[in-house]
Amino acid sequence: MSGTTRREALMPDSERIAADLRELSSFTESAEPGWSRRVFSEPYRAARGFVEQRMRGAGLDTHVDAAGNIVGRLAGRRQTLPALMTGSHTDTVHAGGRFDGMVGVLGAIEVARRLRETGTELERDLYVVDFLGEEANPFGLSCMGSRAIAGSLSRDHLDRQDETGLRLGDAMSRFGVAPEHALEMAWSPGSLQGYVELHIEQGPVLERGSKQIGVVTAIAGIERLLASFSGRADHAGTMPMAGRQDALVAAASAVLTIEREACGAPIHGVSTTGRIESSPGSFNIVPDEARIWAEMRSIDASWLQGAKRRVAERIAAEASDRGVDAVLEWLNDSETVSATTSVQDRIAGAADDLGFCWEAMPSGAGHDAAHIAAIAPMGMIFVPSAGGRSHVPEEFTDVADIARGVHLLAASLVDLDRGN
Amino acid sequence: MSGTTRREALMPDSERIAADLRELSSFTESAEPGWSRRVFSEPYRAARGFVEQRMRGAGLDTHVDAAGNIVGRLAGRRQTLPALMTGSHTDTVHAGGRFDGMVGVLGAIEVARRLRETGTELERDLYVVDFLGEEANPFGLSCMGSRAIAGSLSRDHLDRQDETGLRLGDAMSRFGVAPEHALEMAWSPGSLQGYVELHIEQGPVLERGSKQIGVVTAIAGIERLLASFSGRADHAGTMPMAGRQDALVAAASAVLTIEREACGAPIHGVSTTGRIESSPGSFNIVPDEARIWAEMRSIDASWLQGAKRRVAERIAAEASDRGVDAVLEWLNDSETVSATTSVQDRIAGAADDLGFCWEAMPSGAGHDAAHIAAIAPMGMIFVPSAGGRSHVPEEFTDVADIARGVHLLAASLVDLDRGN
Repeated sequence: MSGTTRREALMPDSERIAADLRELSSFTESAEPGWSRRVFSEPYRAARGFVEQRMRGAGLDTHVDAAGNIVGRLAGRRQTLPALMTGSHTDTVHAGGRFDGMVGVLGAIEVARRLRETGTELERDLYVVDFLGEEANPFGLSCMGSRAIAGSLSRDHLDRQDETGLRLGDAMSRFGVAPEHALEMAWSPGSLQGYVELHIEQGPVLERGSKQIGVVTAIAGIERLLASFSGRADHAGTMPMAGRQDALVAAASAVLTIEREACGAPIHGVSTTGRIESSPGSFNIVPDEARIWAEMRSIDASWLQGAKRRVAERIAAEASDRGVDAVLEWLNDSETVSATTSVQDRIAGAADDLGFCWEAMPSGAGHDAAHIAAIAPMGMIFVPSAGGRSHVPEEFTDVADIARGVHLLAASLVDLDRGN
Repeated sequence: MSGTTRREALMPDSERIAADLRELSSFTESAEPGWSRRVFSEPYRAARGFVEQRMRGAGLDTHVDAAGNIVGRLAGRRQTLPALMTGSHTDTVHAGGRFDGMVGVLGAIEVARRLRETGTELERDLYVVDFLGEEANPFGLSCMGSRAIAGSLSRDHLDRQDETGLRLGDAMSRFGVAPEHALEMAWSPGSLQGYVELHIEQGPVLERGSKQIGVVTAIAGIERLLASFSGRADHAGTMPMAGRQDALVAAASAVLTIEREACGAPIHGVSTTGRIESSPGSFNIVPDEARIWAEMRSIDASWLQGAKRRVAERIAAEASDRGVDAVLEWLNDSETVSATTSVQDRIAGAADDLGFCWEAMPSGAGHDAAHIAAIAPMGMIFVPSAGGRSHVPEEFTDVADIARGVHLLAASLVDLDRGN
């Protein structure tokens, strides 16, 4: 069988993928809007039972590791070689969709099924992983499971608390995960030949460009900012404009400063104020307090550092001009992570072989892949998101697009398996 | 006795005013911050008992009218002549101060006391009024009592509801006021020779200019705006800047547009965004909804109308440029009310005679005087507010400043009594 023929043979079963997606999405918090399956929720627990069952059905040797990742192993011929890994997550944001994460987990299972069904034996072990808790959550720690595998989960992380004061470590224990063991289970660098993750784009770039596949070049770094403005409350009718210390006007100015910054990014950058508050909140009182929560992302680490400095300077200067104090607190940042060039090249080459129309593109969203990259050569495959919508109930990717992504995932893993 | 000597004789008793202010401010909602004595509250009811008692002690023939105003009458020699009226209010905003309104009521009572103590008989009846519910309140209707006297209280007003669904009319009934009668009790135009209200400035203009007295030229009109912005929620990491419909950025731009408008007012204008909200409120979601509550005020009615039009056009255009829908709702406006020139002239002349350093100035805040102006020649006397602060616990006016204002109120009323 030629390489091309072997690739064609790995074409997935779209119907089976669509059915799996339907069934997985049925595990949802019924009292919540959209599709909600947040980490540690009962529907999340139930959905993981379904995933484990599907992994076993695909012939994977399956267990839940110390960090709560569901890990399925397809044994290769030479188990001493560095292994392959693929996967994603099955938790969702609140009121989210039916594709983010799920496509990567169910797609990986379909790859394993097709490898077995076609008698395609790999040289290396292939691990399919459903990583614990990838999405943002009340503990302020995304990618719990992939951090544990990469060795970057820390004791401080476990001490983070949700709004009720519950420690993450205690939430993990209640869920049946052993947090102390999760700190000690990192895979060694060198144990993996490569990691490839299939994911929906979550943005409009592929659809706008009429592309079928995105080959990810890098995962954007993130700088998050809480800016607090303190001015002076005055009667809005009697205090002339010249004498005001209006915290809300300073905050509004910062919102525009933040927007402008990424509009001028030369390679890639996005910047967003996601939330604003002001007080006391009466028509006739000049606001004395305002806060904004903002973030900037880029795959261009040097631009991102410069942007952070420029934004901080401008916000402080603009607030000062208005007699307003600005306190900037930079929160949980994450660094830019490049996809490994050789893995990108293999994915791109396989896409060419399969005749898929693809483009190289950044990932603006974070992924488990960003963490696994610390211990393995990493690449990601994107499939289009209708209208670029994600983290909303309208999130949608056509099953034909998903099938192309799964097909490319299979082909890429087979190529990586050769390991040269 | 010469005019000047008579004026000197009416010099008020500062100690008595200070004691009255202390005692009135002791009626406060103990569970609330600052000084809170909101309309219909129990401390408000108790404070009104104190005011009634002080009016009777000043020799005023006192009753509570159908609209809940406490009205004290000092009979003049010729009761068929149009009467004089002075007064203010004793309710406060939540967490307010100890001077706003109270100075005008207690000052008016001190004037009556001094007239009697000095044997200064007026030709005309003098009415001292503690107007019901002047401040902003959950029913969205300020100046309840002065509206009733001016004949501008309407059945629609009585149907307004607070956040619990309680009708204003029912709240008035519970408080012992007869709302149906309040609609039918307007004083006829011509029944009053003049109305003068003493009030704290609530702004910094007098203090900055080292002036003792402000002679009000006009009470600013108010235009209030609720602007609602609807965009599209997107993943903040994956949606490029160019494709966004960010409702919060459009709202922030509107905040700056509103600020700029009054900064350019040629005569007088203030413009304030008092409140902002956005949703859904996550770091990583482009906000799809935002709202701002804003107001513009000016004594220049034509500028105010132009500003309203310009602000509406610019907000709509800026939102449209961002692909955001803006819906502008103009809420309860109030029109600019000029002080009567002849009353201003009498106040200014009396201030000159008393050797007070005064300036003519607008009132950015609304007052009962704005309503009484519909049925009587109207003027207002301002005394300085320390630091321009008002509607906050720090609100402060020195008793020496208050005494000057009371003295000028007495002199102005005596001048108006002559009636030529």
